[in-house]
Amino acid sequence: MTHAVDLVADLGEGFGAYTMGDDEALLDVLTSANIACGFHAGDPRIMDATVRRCAEIGVAVGAHHSFPDLVGFGRRAMDLTPDEVRTDTLYQMGALHAFATAHGTGLRHIAPHGRLGNLVATRPDYAEAVAGAVASFDRSLIVLAQDGELADAARALGLRVGIVGIADRAYRDDGTLVPRSEPGAVLHDAGEIAERTVRMVTEGVIRTVGGRDLPVACDTVLLHGDTPGAIALARRIRGELLTAGVRIAPLTEVLDLKADATVGSA
Amino acid sequence: MTHAVDLVADLGEGFGAYTMGDDEALLDVLTSANIACGFHAGDPRIMDATVRRCAEIGVAVGAHHSFPDLVGFGRRAMDLTPDEVRTDTLYQMGALHAFATAHGTGLRHIAPHGRLGNLVATRPDYAEAVAGAVASFDRSLIVLAQDGELADAARALGLRVGIVGIADRAYRDDGTLVPRSEPGAVLHDAGEIAERTVRMVTEGVIRTVGGRDLPVACDTVLLHGDTPGAIALARRIRGELLTAGVRIAPLTEVLDLKADATVGSA
Amino acid sequence: MTHAVDLVADLGEGFGAYTMGDDEALLDVLTSANIACGFHAGDPRIMDATVRRCAEIGVAVGAHHSFPDLVGFGRRAMDLTPDEVRTDTLYQMGALHAFATAHGTGLRHIAPHGRLGNLVATRPDYAEAVAGAVASFDRSLIVLAQDGELADAARALGLRVGIVGIADRAYRDDGTLVPRSEPGAVLHDAGEIAERTVRMVTEGVIRTVGGRDLPVACDTVLLHGDTPGAIALARRIRGELLTAGVRIAPLTEVLDLKADATVGSA
Amino acid sequence: MTHAVDLVADLGEGFGAYTMGDDEALLDVLTSANIACGFHAGDPRIMDATVRRCAEIGVAVGAHHSFPDLVGFGRRAMDLTPDEVRTDTLYQMGALHAFATAHGTGLRHIAPHGRLGNLVATRPDYAEAVAGAVASFDRSLIVLAQDGELADAARALGLRVGIVGIADRAYRDDGTLVPRSEPGAVLHDAGEIAERTVRMVTEGVIRTVGGRDLPVACDTVLLHGDTPGAIALARRIRGELLTAGVRIAPLTEVLDLKADATVGSA
Repeated sequence: MTHAVDLVADLGEGFGAYTMGDDEALLDVLTSANIACGFHAGDPRIMDATVRRCAEIGVAVGAHHSFPDLVGFGRRAMDLTPDEVRTDTLYQMGALHAFATAHGTGLRHIAPHGRLGNLVATRPDYAEAVAGAVASFDRSLIVLAQDGELADAARALGLRVGIVGIADRAYRDDGTLVPRSEPGAVLHDAGEIAERTVRMVTEGVIRTVGGRDLPVACDTVLLHGDTPGAIALARRIRGELLTAGVRIAPLTEVLDLKADATVGSA
Repeated sequence: MTHAVDLVADLGEGFGAYTMGDDEALLDVLTSANIACGFHAGDPRIMDATVRRCAEIGVAVGAHHSFPDLVGFGRRAMDLTPDEVRTDTLYQMGALHAFATAHGTGLRHIAPHGRLGNLVATRPDYAEAVAGAVASFDRSLIVLAQDGELADAARALGLRVGIVGIADRAYRDDGTLVPRSEPGAVLHDAGEIAERTVRMVTEGVIRTVGGRDLPVACDTVLLHGDTPGAIALARRIRGELLTAGVRIAPLTEVLDLKADATVGSA
Repeated sequence: MTHAVDLVADLGEGFGAYTMGDDEALLDVLTSANIACGFHAGDPRIMDATVRRCAEIGVAVGAHHSFPDLVGFGRRAMDLTPDEVRTDTLYQMGALHAFATAHGTGLRHIAPHGRLGNLVATRPDYAEAVAGAVASFDRSLIVLAQDGELADAARALGLRVGIVGIADRAYRDDGTLVPRSEPGAVLHDAGEIAERTVRMVTEGVIRTVGGRDLPVACDTVLLHGDTPGAIALARRIRGELLTAGVRIAPLTEVLDLKADATVGSA
Repeated sequence: MTHAVDLVADLGEGFGAYTMGDDEALLDVLTSANIACGFHAGDPRIMDATVRRCAEIGVAVGAHHSFPDLVGFGRRAMDLTPDEVRTDTLYQMGALHAFATAHGTGLRHIAPHGRLGNLVATRPDYAEAVAGAVASFDRSLIVLAQDGELADAARALGLRVGIVGIADRAYRDDGTLVPRSEPGAVLHDAGEIAERTVRMVTEGVIRTVGGRDLPVACDTVLLHGDTPGAIALARRIRGELLTAGVRIAPLTEVLDLKADATVGSA
């Protein structure tokens, strides 16, 4: 059986005169992009230009929506009501959708950013608010999430879910991530990260700090472009996946393949 | 021949804890609503609630987009590039479209707010930027405008235009409005405004300060809800239009009727 | 012994074209004003006009600083670092101070708004951040607070504290407020509220839901102006305090009197 | 006679997670800093850190206030009323003043940023609004300006003015700058810019495109840190000024020296 995986990164995270990350270098590596929608980063010009480039080279476009916290880059928890999360999601998703339509590509997925992205994994009320917003707008959108509440809430509403695999973080035996506050939480060795990514995609496991092979899902690999060496790492991951015979494909194809495989194995 | 006209007003112009105007009272009178999109007023909760009410009672929903100037309520001129106007329009239009979709109604029109609304009538670059944004997003949207550059630019792109009739302002013989800085620029007598509206719709003329009957188009009448007596005036205008045998109808129907009439008379 | 108390309310809570509350009617009743600084409400024009009116009639001016959350009116918790709280406080306090200086009056106090105001009562890190900001800017400023962490942190830094008395909320026997989610948490009877205020000021006690007379401090009474009947209630409270022989005085005088009394009784 | 000049640059122009320019490298070269106040760039953390560094190494702190246009970096003209300009100036100046006070240094000057900085040179209403704000807050503040309306308005109110010398722009014989839209408007040769700066400071002239030596004032030289080679250029200018025997001194000293010289020569 051929393995397939999508490669995604957060793009368009500048604002006005400010830039962040090397989007152009990353674009060559990706099949999907999470694009900031103005609440934590991004503005209408940056959204327009980023979506245009994605459309030109065939990278699938998704909404990277956030808490309304530009000065905090969406990294600070806010105590919003579920209705506030739902309506903020609709607003941002709709804004990005307009650019996707204008450039002749479709909106393909959504992926909550930063602290909102953390909280939807554990707070059912936020998870249902985000999934509900998506379901009310376009049921063909894929919800990008780690295993957790958002993935469950999206599936419960009949939405497709793309599980984001994380290869550069240490896992405990119980499947949780080692907190960033602890030493060794984040891996930095490019070779190790690439190898873990390949195993995650081809074998469906990741090695824990306790030495176990933990089963993990991975429909898309989250790459980064905003740190030194990030572009080189992203290229290495892509290269080693190809070397391992993995097909790099848009998320919709990845999910279709897995759905077929599931049906075929039944 | 039966005359038909749409009745429109600016709704959803509160923000956060702030309210503005009596939207609920106005809704009974309207067939269309220009809904603020967050740049001069409105926030995701207010947009959601306003679109929901419009959908419930069958009022057509349009995007009331603006310069990015919340503290100035979009009333201050900003020297933006055409590309900034285009992308700001796409962003706001898309955001409102998401709520319209979520509530099962469509986005039907756009209407630039405040100072942007003034400037698109006289600046071809801004007019083309707004019309271009609409054309790239959804060619079925109607562009609300006074006679001027935006109406021309929209027609040049093959978009439908709804001309907004203004009955509570004094006109000069040359067809321009008496500036607000001059006495008598704004009419306040409800009876006079209602009568001028009826003549504008049924006879296609408005009486100037010089006593001439000036030919004017009017596909939709702009009503207000944010001043004392505004609701009563709106109701009176509606009532006198009905008494005069005018059909109050959604803008799409008004434009279809006129298109048929034009064809029929050919 | 003569009792004295300050009367304070939140003013200048409009924004741009939006108004909130009837500041002009309240001003007659007050000796101090908490003025919004632009983060939850208020803008430079409103700050300027509100400070000017306070200066004209001799109402003491204080900074009503907030979390940066205009759309949420500062009522939503945000997970800020203490340094973010400290620097946001300095920024807002400084901005208001400029208007106080321009209008020839001084900045006299600070009073955290909304959710920040709640959290500084219980979170020592936020309390120290606010008190530290004040101490680094002007050690003569009075910190308005309920009994709690902020009052403690301010005193620990040698700052003067004005305890805000709350007469329209129900107290439990243990001195905590009945949560707003429970019935009877908020009192609405004007006579009862006025009478409780008088007892709080003259006897230093408030009657709990359990029927106890709970000792409470009260250097200033928080009045409201944004609900129906609020102005009438504010006037009634002021009137009954005067009738009871209480001197209504600026907070600095109230605190000086109490300090003298303490020294005198020593 | 010894010549003296101040060296100033725009600092603290990051926002939230975004950085701009190499402030730390520039600080070594400067005697004064224009610090962004949150309207076009800067946030309370960046303002705090920038002022702290300036205080540590003895660089004088000034407010670099702007139109309220974060997404446009203050570079877009806005049609504000003079009262809006005045109150926006007070707000930003006050906010920065709080940080200057907290770090034990004083606020020394103000310098309007970007498009506002351009417009105050030619619009008397904006110039008077800015100068009026300064005069109402602190009459000891120095107003940084090019020759023009702001300099005149500030002097008319009895404020001290520091004329900003510009050495990297081409001048016409009539004393106006060659517009940026024309070729040769901006000089790029470091040696030429440094030499022009030295002549401006020591001889009080600058060579025009027509070959004339135009008399120009220069109390402070505006350096830049946000382009490639900018730091090297700034160091070269400083070095050549020192070589030419010019004293690099804080603006207050420069103005005092010139005032003494004027008195002495009388």
